Amino acid sequence: MERTKKMATIRDVASEAGVSVATVSRVLNGKGYVHEDTLKKVQQAIKKLNYSPNEVARSLFKRKSKLVGLLLPDITNPFFPELARGVEDELQKQGFRLLFGNSDENPEKEQAYIDTFLQNQVVGMISATQTSGLHKGEPHVIPTVLLDRTHGGNYTVYADGREGGRIAARELISRGSHNITLLKGPGNISPVQDRFLGAVEVLAGANVDFHVIQMASLTYEEAEQRAKELFSHYPGTDGILASNDMTAAAVLHEALRIGKSIPDEVQIIGFDDIPMSRLLFPALSTIRQPVYEMGKQAAQLLLKLIKKEQVTEQNIQLPVTFVERNTTRKVKRDG
Amino acid sequence: MERTKKMATIRDVASEAGVSVATVSRVLNGKGYVHEDTLKKVQQAIKKLNYSPNEVARSLFKRKSKLVGLLLPDITNPFFPELARGVEDELQKQGFRLLFGNSDENPEKEQAYIDTFLQNQVVGMISATQTSGLHKGEPHVIPTVLLDRTHGGNYTVYADGREGGRIAARELISRGSHNITLLKGPGNISPVQDRFLGAVEVLAGANVDFHVIQMASLTYEEAEQRAKELFSHYPGTDGILASNDMTAAAVLHEALRIGKSIPDEVQIIGFDDIPMSRLLFPALSTIRQPVYEMGKQAAQLLLKLIKKEQVTEQNIQLPVTFVERNTTRKVKRDG
Repeated sequence: MERTKKMATIRDVASEAGVSVATVSRVLNGKGYVHEDTLKKVQQAIKKLNYSPNEVARSLFKRKSKLVGLLLPDITNPFFPELARGVEDELQKQGFRLLFGNSDENPEKEQAYIDTFLQNQVVGMISATQTSGLHKGEPHVIPTVLLDRTHGGNYTVYADGREGGRIAARELISRGSHNITLLKGPGNISPVQDRFLGAVEVLAGANVDFHVIQMASLTYEEAEQRAKELFSHYPGTDGILASNDMTAAAVLHEALRIGKSIPDEVQIIGFDDIPMSRLLFPALSTIRQPVYEMGKQAAQLLLKLIKKEQVTEQNIQLPVTFVERNTTRKVKRDG
Repeated sequence: MERTKKMATIRDVASEAGVSVATVSRVLNGKGYVHEDTLKKVQQAIKKLNYSPNEVARSLFKRKSKLVGLLLPDITNPFFPELARGVEDELQKQGFRLLFGNSDENPEKEQAYIDTFLQNQVVGMISATQTSGLHKGEPHVIPTVLLDRTHGGNYTVYADGREGGRIAARELISRGSHNITLLKGPGNISPVQDRFLGAVEVLAGANVDFHVIQMASLTYEEAEQRAKELFSHYPGTDGILASNDMTAAAVLHEALRIGKSIPDEVQIIGFDDIPMSRLLFPALSTIRQPVYEMGKQAAQLLLKLIKKEQVTEQNIQLPVTFVERNTTRKVKRDG
């Protein structure tokens, strides 16, 4: 419906509602506390005058918000909260705020969160999930950085999982394991696949037996189940490469429960170095991902894209390191 | 500046930009993918015609969004992601979406997230933090439920921490501990204070020695530090009540490291029952909070407030239970 009329200003609204311009502004911006009665008065005045707050409308297409959306696949895995902290701290420092979404490894929830982010005018997104939409190379409406689970995106930050797998396998072998079992995570998760391939690369060239147990998920329940199967299916196992620290914790528990001496009879190496790893007993040897740093660098890369600054490195790969604790034996040194 | 002019419609914008009304709508709602060139054309048309999308302005004060804000104090403590899952699943079921904020136990970050939530027109908030503003009884602009860290708010959901403390103390005593050390969390966190007071209530009436170690925070670093001090300051300790499972894990690690036999020499009881508790070895005996259920009920209560449905119970207290695992001895049964 088109009509010709004088447009109301914020002063008209304040006058009609009998409040200050500042109060109307607080209502419009949803910022600061406004008494419920006052809120109603202002709303009625806005309605009556058909007031249209142009500054708000403008921000809609100028996309001036300082919000960034972060998609995580599963916040109950301690790796992801740590990743989020790295992202959050960096954004905070540069005056941006974070909206989290937890997809729970569910593509529909993922898409729902992306919609929510866009509806709320985020200026950029960081995704640690496998969203089909984000990974198909579709032109994104807003700058997007893929983090950890990168699947060959345009702008990515990830750790060198392939090398991590190689290091883990070499450490087990050099410390005397001959019969190695790999707990392999879901094949559609790129970093999990990378670390597996790295390990197999080394194992295939070494003089050792090895077995692969495939996991359909990275849940606590499945980790416990597979840990139990491991020692009944492969009782000769003297070295275990777990797909992450949570799985390694389940394996360590089961090994101790059935009376294995760790690391004398069985060595275990995890992946990630989540905070709980050093609280296990024996403390877990693991491949450390610089998870906080990964989050931080993803935020820095995204902010460069948002501010249209020059990006020299589109795909940032960070190194991993072996953290020697007590689920691996000390290296025998010759001479 | 006031002026008289014909107001542009969404059709005018579509026509000016040479795109469909649906495309303009997608741009305005930030929903769905729009090619960057198209986006620019639409933005230019909006600018040229000074188009003001009334439906967006309206939603601003009618607060019709389906977003709920959730404030957590520290997502690296596994208790909170689990709590968040309970909230999220229930909201999802009822067609609402969640925006997370992690305050990192920092009041300024807390306030910044509350502002962000309000700016983004959340229709309600759930807070598991100690925000001064939310707890001072100020009239809230939007419905708010306090979860876990409730501090006597108007609408609250929490577990019976006081009884949890009592149960934990009774279990230690009935299983033979005589020299008990309590690791007490920060006094400004209400559930932590409750469980401490419950335990002291029982210990004070029992024929046992006990010691209190005060923690200034609930971080991994402090848990490890205090665990080390515990056995040097109170070497005679034969029973430990930890303020949460993370702290209990640090204590268990230290006890095993210095060669204590668990549970024969020292019994340990945690609090929360985080997923990792059962993966520790020996698996941790603990007081279980129905954390997922707490999140779910907080979401249900909030949605009743949002929909202005009748609320029969403003303050919902859920029961806790003792989970007997292997850091406590089996009860001696007489006869």
